[in-house]
Amino acid sequence: MQSRDIFDNLSPLDHRYWEANRELFDALSERLSDRASVRACVLAEIALLKAHLAARGLGTEERFRDLDALAGSVDPEEVAREEEKTRHNIRALVNVLQSKVPADLAPLVHLGATSVDILDTARAVQLRGAVLEVLLPLLARVLAELARLAEEEADTPQVGRTHGRHAVPVTFGFALAEYAARLGKCLPRLEDLARDLRGKLAGATGSYNALSMIYPDPEEVERTYLGFLGLSPSEHSTQLVEPEHVLRLLLELNTAFGILANLADDLRHLQREEIDEVRESFGGAQVGSSTMPQKRNPWNSEHVKSLWKAFCPRVLTFFLDQISEHQRDLTNSASERFSVEFLAGLGAAANRMLKVLKSLSVDRERMAVNLRSSGGAVLAEPAYILLAESGRADAHEEVRRLTLQAESEGLSFSEVLARRPEIRDILYGRLRDLGHPDPEGFFAAPERYRGLAAEKARALGRKYRELARRWAD
Amino acid sequence: MQSRDIFDNLSPLDHRYWEANRELFDALSERLSDRASVRACVLAEIALLKAHLAARGLGTEERFRDLDALAGSVDPEEVAREEEKTRHNIRALVNVLQSKVPADLAPLVHLGATSVDILDTARAVQLRGAVLEVLLPLLARVLAELARLAEEEADTPQVGRTHGRHAVPVTFGFALAEYAARLGKCLPRLEDLARDLRGKLAGATGSYNALSMIYPDPEEVERTYLGFLGLSPSEHSTQLVEPEHVLRLLLELNTAFGILANLADDLRHLQREEIDEVRESFGGAQVGSSTMPQKRNPWNSEHVKSLWKAFCPRVLTFFLDQISEHQRDLTNSASERFSVEFLAGLGAAANRMLKVLKSLSVDRERMAVNLRSSGGAVLAEPAYILLAESGRADAHEEVRRLTLQAESEGLSFSEVLARRPEIRDILYGRLRDLGHPDPEGFFAAPERYRGLAAEKARALGRKYRELARRWAD
Amino acid sequence: MQSRDIFDNLSPLDHRYWEANRELFDALSERLSDRASVRACVLAEIALLKAHLAARGLGTEERFRDLDALAGSVDPEEVAREEEKTRHNIRALVNVLQSKVPADLAPLVHLGATSVDILDTARAVQLRGAVLEVLLPLLARVLAELARLAEEEADTPQVGRTHGRHAVPVTFGFALAEYAARLGKCLPRLEDLARDLRGKLAGATGSYNALSMIYPDPEEVERTYLGFLGLSPSEHSTQLVEPEHVLRLLLELNTAFGILANLADDLRHLQREEIDEVRESFGGAQVGSSTMPQKRNPWNSEHVKSLWKAFCPRVLTFFLDQISEHQRDLTNSASERFSVEFLAGLGAAANRMLKVLKSLSVDRERMAVNLRSSGGAVLAEPAYILLAESGRADAHEEVRRLTLQAESEGLSFSEVLARRPEIRDILYGRLRDLGHPDPEGFFAAPERYRGLAAEKARALGRKYRELARRWAD
Amino acid sequence: MQSRDIFDNLSPLDHRYWEANRELFDALSERLSDRASVRACVLAEIALLKAHLAARGLGTEERFRDLDALAGSVDPEEVAREEEKTRHNIRALVNVLQSKVPADLAPLVHLGATSVDILDTARAVQLRGAVLEVLLPLLARVLAELARLAEEEADTPQVGRTHGRHAVPVTFGFALAEYAARLGKCLPRLEDLARDLRGKLAGATGSYNALSMIYPDPEEVERTYLGFLGLSPSEHSTQLVEPEHVLRLLLELNTAFGILANLADDLRHLQREEIDEVRESFGGAQVGSSTMPQKRNPWNSEHVKSLWKAFCPRVLTFFLDQISEHQRDLTNSASERFSVEFLAGLGAAANRMLKVLKSLSVDRERMAVNLRSSGGAVLAEPAYILLAESGRADAHEEVRRLTLQAESEGLSFSEVLARRPEIRDILYGRLRDLGHPDPEGFFAAPERYRGLAAEKARALGRKYRELARRWAD
Repeated sequence: MQSRDIFDNLSPLDHRYWEANRELFDALSERLSDRASVRACVLAEIALLKAHLAARGLGTEERFRDLDALAGSVDPEEVAREEEKTRHNIRALVNVLQSKVPADLAPLVHLGATSVDILDTARAVQLRGAVLEVLLPLLARVLAELARLAEEEADTPQVGRTHGRHAVPVTFGFALAEYAARLGKCLPRLEDLARDLRGKLAGATGSYNALSMIYPDPEEVERTYLGFLGLSPSEHSTQLVEPEHVLRLLLELNTAFGILANLADDLRHLQREEIDEVRESFGGAQVGSSTMPQKRNPWNSEHVKSLWKAFCPRVLTFFLDQISEHQRDLTNSASERFSVEFLAGLGAAANRMLKVLKSLSVDRERMAVNLRSSGGAVLAEPAYILLAESGRADAHEEVRRLTLQAESEGLSFSEVLARRPEIRDILYGRLRDLGHPDPEGFFAAPERYRGLAAEKARALGRKYRELARRWAD
Repeated sequence: MQSRDIFDNLSPLDHRYWEANRELFDALSERLSDRASVRACVLAEIALLKAHLAARGLGTEERFRDLDALAGSVDPEEVAREEEKTRHNIRALVNVLQSKVPADLAPLVHLGATSVDILDTARAVQLRGAVLEVLLPLLARVLAELARLAEEEADTPQVGRTHGRHAVPVTFGFALAEYAARLGKCLPRLEDLARDLRGKLAGATGSYNALSMIYPDPEEVERTYLGFLGLSPSEHSTQLVEPEHVLRLLLELNTAFGILANLADDLRHLQREEIDEVRESFGGAQVGSSTMPQKRNPWNSEHVKSLWKAFCPRVLTFFLDQISEHQRDLTNSASERFSVEFLAGLGAAANRMLKVLKSLSVDRERMAVNLRSSGGAVLAEPAYILLAESGRADAHEEVRRLTLQAESEGLSFSEVLARRPEIRDILYGRLRDLGHPDPEGFFAAPERYRGLAAEKARALGRKYRELARRWAD
Repeated sequence: MQSRDIFDNLSPLDHRYWEANRELFDALSERLSDRASVRACVLAEIALLKAHLAARGLGTEERFRDLDALAGSVDPEEVAREEEKTRHNIRALVNVLQSKVPADLAPLVHLGATSVDILDTARAVQLRGAVLEVLLPLLARVLAELARLAEEEADTPQVGRTHGRHAVPVTFGFALAEYAARLGKCLPRLEDLARDLRGKLAGATGSYNALSMIYPDPEEVERTYLGFLGLSPSEHSTQLVEPEHVLRLLLELNTAFGILANLADDLRHLQREEIDEVRESFGGAQVGSSTMPQKRNPWNSEHVKSLWKAFCPRVLTFFLDQISEHQRDLTNSASERFSVEFLAGLGAAANRMLKVLKSLSVDRERMAVNLRSSGGAVLAEPAYILLAESGRADAHEEVRRLTLQAESEGLSFSEVLARRPEIRDILYGRLRDLGHPDPEGFFAAPERYRGLAAEKARALGRKYRELARRWAD
Repeated sequence: MQSRDIFDNLSPLDHRYWEANRELFDALSERLSDRASVRACVLAEIALLKAHLAARGLGTEERFRDLDALAGSVDPEEVAREEEKTRHNIRALVNVLQSKVPADLAPLVHLGATSVDILDTARAVQLRGAVLEVLLPLLARVLAELARLAEEEADTPQVGRTHGRHAVPVTFGFALAEYAARLGKCLPRLEDLARDLRGKLAGATGSYNALSMIYPDPEEVERTYLGFLGLSPSEHSTQLVEPEHVLRLLLELNTAFGILANLADDLRHLQREEIDEVRESFGGAQVGSSTMPQKRNPWNSEHVKSLWKAFCPRVLTFFLDQISEHQRDLTNSASERFSVEFLAGLGAAANRMLKVLKSLSVDRERMAVNLRSSGGAVLAEPAYILLAESGRADAHEEVRRLTLQAESEGLSFSEVLARRPEIRDILYGRLRDLGHPDPEGFFAAPERYRGLAAEKARALGRKYRELARRWAD
């Protein structure tokens, strides 16, 4: 082919983000580049040849071995050069293969197949490989880090925030367990969907016309062909495999992407100057701003969110590609090639998130400070509960007024309670009834009011740590 | 509440398309309107009361019966009026309920719950009902019609079209079996996803803080509460249920929507003047154009496609709603309400498609005319196959030139073959070898070259006819 | 028609958000509901009748007055009833009109027109009215509030935030001037685009076939027809007006929507517990959370953002509707009806933002506290500038290390400077050279380092306050 | 940098579509690649240096010349290597420049600027160049071809199609004039929007803090800086230029893209086997299908549509990038880099469409055959018009019944008219009144009933042929 300085490439994926994700992108390129497509098509054509031999009772192990060896020897660039003549990629590949196989096999090359029998089948193999061998292990590493942090920070008090306002206390491990639980549900689905990608050998219109001219049971030949590649046939084909197999996989990938984006947003906001509870690791010589020397920015989390903004809308293309007129039109041809970009975008985001999580610095002290900063107002809820439990129907309104009073007079919630002994005594009494060890201290220690946060964090951390191992590489 | 002439509504769903889908939209309204939401929240609050009673060992059947009866007696409009005061919908509902339950239960109303424990749980019940009881049976009826047509037209010859050009023959039943197979795969998934919608009682931040003040095993209380509604708990909650349960359901609904849109496109194009193979039923007095009296347009199929154009992009909103900061922000509140519109949009499209399929008139004669119109060029493929099978490596190129000659000289493919006896004889010979009953007639009868089209149509028709029964109402 | 409790409507716009936006939604309904569409079509048909009269030299003022009066007397519901028979909305209208006009005019009703000549023309009138008379004045009110706040808070010190981290000081008025400047640019564009909506009378395929049978200069008749409605003709028509006139208007509306969403996000985050610089007004009896009595949430800003999430993706539908096959297909028919929803969604968001801005409470004290909270690190930039200006090429790195030192030792930036007199003296010297009145105090008063923030706030506030008046109602 | 075989790139743009669009993509790469970005930033930094000199009265022509020369000598790869150290692209550039400029200028490099003052400014220059110098001339060539074809085919009779059904006659030139008129309106807008892209020198938060420390009139310095690059300042800046300048440009590009997609759809369908009115040129040795030798597919038009499906949804990213928190967050950083891909996608589509149009083969004979194929039913409209004109209020219904009769009895419209002399005579009479030269022949020659199709085609063809010259290269 042709070499070019990657600095001249147009897609950020092929330069800037390749630089930042060398190993990952090389692994994706190996499975998804145009070169990889040609290779996958070669494998499919060879599988077809073997299926022809098998159907004719000529499928000896030796011939299969020779053909497998031949598959490895085809140079994708030779195919590309041939395509310049034919302007048809599969016809080009067929020409090349026919010149390489033993003469008696030449007429069998591609026999009974339409281009898409090869292309859609090859694409299934490629996507399956990219998901099972690259993206899934990567996402599993992210999951493992989330699980680790959930367990490590299971007991770290943090204020729970709803609407950006202090709600009631949780723990930081609990907050991260959310993402383990959500991401963890995507992984088995991704595996199932990737393993359920389908191929076909049903011909130009899916009805096995050509193959029926050659063999009495074309569906058997299709199964043999696909079996060599570890695939099952599309239940119904037009010229194309049923599009929903790929669609559902891509949608689930985007579902995982959205979870990463949500996590990125949380981490971004926890790095706000006024919150400052976590910090992405920052190289010693790294510069946050060219003009503001003090800046350290959550740029990795911002990057993950930004990649999601770039790629999430592309699901619309996946849905547009469901539609193909009659036995197929070609309007999915260019568009579906760009799903490679989508996989790379998700990969880059997962890679970056992995890096963030691996070196995330958690400021437990700051979390404690923030938790206490609202003067115990985060304990309005238990005060209301206890009061309501005691039979006061106006409990909510009563406590709401207490918090307003605390705020307007600059008092802590404990202090304002002290001024209303009739209420305070009810609360202490209820706490005592509940067997609370230190009723008097309850409203001065919000971090103790954390429900099952720690337990859930530990349980989910453990569960998803285990699960992540399934795809460990 | 307030009555208004529906002619003044803003959304086309609430007037124009309500008119066109009365029964369906009434069924959806019963489950998804704001009135239905209040009703569902009442049921959730009552389930919570029952869970409190159960947890205290006070859950007698009689009390449960009384509470269930009370649930039916709450007037959603009373709640709406109360909301004008509180400007908080669940607090309004709580106030109303507290005024209605026996005095000793008043303090237990909503106790330990945050609003979303009720709202997200109620939403799960509502969406589940709308999908399982309304959309799924409707889609199953569409599926049954597709299956019926696939079987009925299993043997109807039709030309297969790729890129809009004649490819090789199929049958019309085979073409419809595509949609049965694709839509048929959505239905069990939709059922699974609808049944897997989750509720919660994990409180303001998902960590069971409030409930932990009251009960030693809050997760047990949550299971009891949700059990009354037939739901399981979200594995992890923030203030919200994990968003992916609803997301995946909506995505699968949109997947089904895309299949209907594709079918609509096919039917539109088969109704093109020059093709004219099928026809939507047309009322005797119906007018196709206000100025062109002869017009009969595929307006129902166009309508289905148009609805898809209106609703498909809304999946982006579903993905945007995956993201909620920390333990939740409220930026999903308005947006997720509009998923009601999405369900109605899909329902309207399915309803219209059902009508189209039920009265689709199939012009078998015209299909036969079109199939033969290309003078047998659709048999170029078997000619190439047979020739290649005979050992000719240039078979494809040879036949390609024959078809060009036929076209430029205005001959049929048979005629041009007749001029090349050396090729023709090979073809006949191969056909004879294959046991073909009438080699000489083969190239004059393209409809016989149809592979497994009829068999597949029948098999898939039968399979999905059976499957559709599962959701028959 | 038929009355229905709005509580049973499906679209949130027709119940929940109608409740919240009565006046606005009534104004939109008056222009955009199905009833309004029929009314607009009546006006178009009457304009066409007048054009016929004019073209025949029969267009007396009296006849025009009679026809205008007749237009007002047509009951949209009668048309709707007729449509149930014809299943064609314009044919229904024509039938009704023919029964009402003087007998000699009956044959002229709709003569030479195709349905879309009426429908697209009416739609232009409707959208123009909704934008010019409803949305534009509403957005202008939002703009006026932004301008007012920009001026009022022009001198209010606030820390500038980039990446959520403290950058350098600005003023709150400056921060709001951003939105005045951005929104202010949309308004004249919206007006231009609304005034540039087009109509047509070019017939079934846009080529004036029918009209050419009747009049020697059909384009002149088209101009007359549209002139009665204040419109110009589409330069080229198919059956449809060129779709880009409506498209560009909708895109600009969505551009304005995005600006509101951005503002909403800023206001949300300024209401975070740890920042707390502004506050939405909160009713005295209003409840923030059903379980956490202390909560006051930025729910109005969240609502605006949420509406944007619901409506922004619908621009894809607008782009999908650009495509219509040949002289038109009908796949834009349902989808373009939903643009009514889009206008209502934007209106609801603007309405809510107006409310937020009108009663926004600004906590200047808190802004000052936050600004100073980083111990003067926000002055790292001027320290670097002054040092660099003095000729130190390593100025950035030098100051970066100072801020790290300040942070790790818990010192303010002034204090750490005091330990490096050689640097401090350079800075003071440069400030003295610049004529700074109080070099020694500079690093202790970050609020003075605000560049042109106040001046820009005032200038832009004034400019856009003036501009907003153009659409004042 | 690093060379890599382009066959290994991930984005189809950087291999497959680069191969297919060498010249175009090289031109885009020269303006939009990462290398080009560095170059543009160098130019911006040099412009800033010159502005500093000018503000100090030191801006001699000689120094400017030297600096301009220096700009050309910076190697982007050196900058890239430096970035690996700083992990901050602009700081890297500054380091490199400081090492190259005369020592007395080193402290002035980047002085008073924040990174985005350079980056957003450079981006404006890059996008402006890519649009004005590459995409606009390319689209103008497409426009010129459309105009040419509109004129050449102005008189070619073609049936007008609505809903895919025959409506009334037009001419093929008229059908193409649609696209000239629509695309032609985008071009001046694109030019205006590209010329209205803005830069900034307003510093870290847009308030000119840094620059105010150095100069009394920072806005004057900003104007000077931007003036060297031919830009105007953003009216208000945060750290970023107001995002709507770029947004509106990208939206207009996508508007043009939609027009190409619509044209592509029309051309696709005109190449349907049953219609077959136009044909894309097809290389002599080109293969349409690997298995069906007779196939010639509209693959270029399909390709254009497919690219649109891949790129159109990305407008959502453009809208998501409107939102940046406070004075900016970084979540637009990665996402906006991908707008390069969008420009390349549109370029590839325009390039392909240009090729299609340049060698489009128009089958006038087939158009005539198709026009007549409906047996004159396309003249139902004038029959109805004439009848209505004659005073028959039931004209539409009468003619509708005639067409039904013609269809059911297999007669032409003329023939069925002949059976109804009372109607026929009215029609002939009216035609005579209208001065028609051959009333008796009217209903046998549908091609004559074409309204202003030819005139409009010619007029619009001429107009847009002229207009296209404005951007001729």
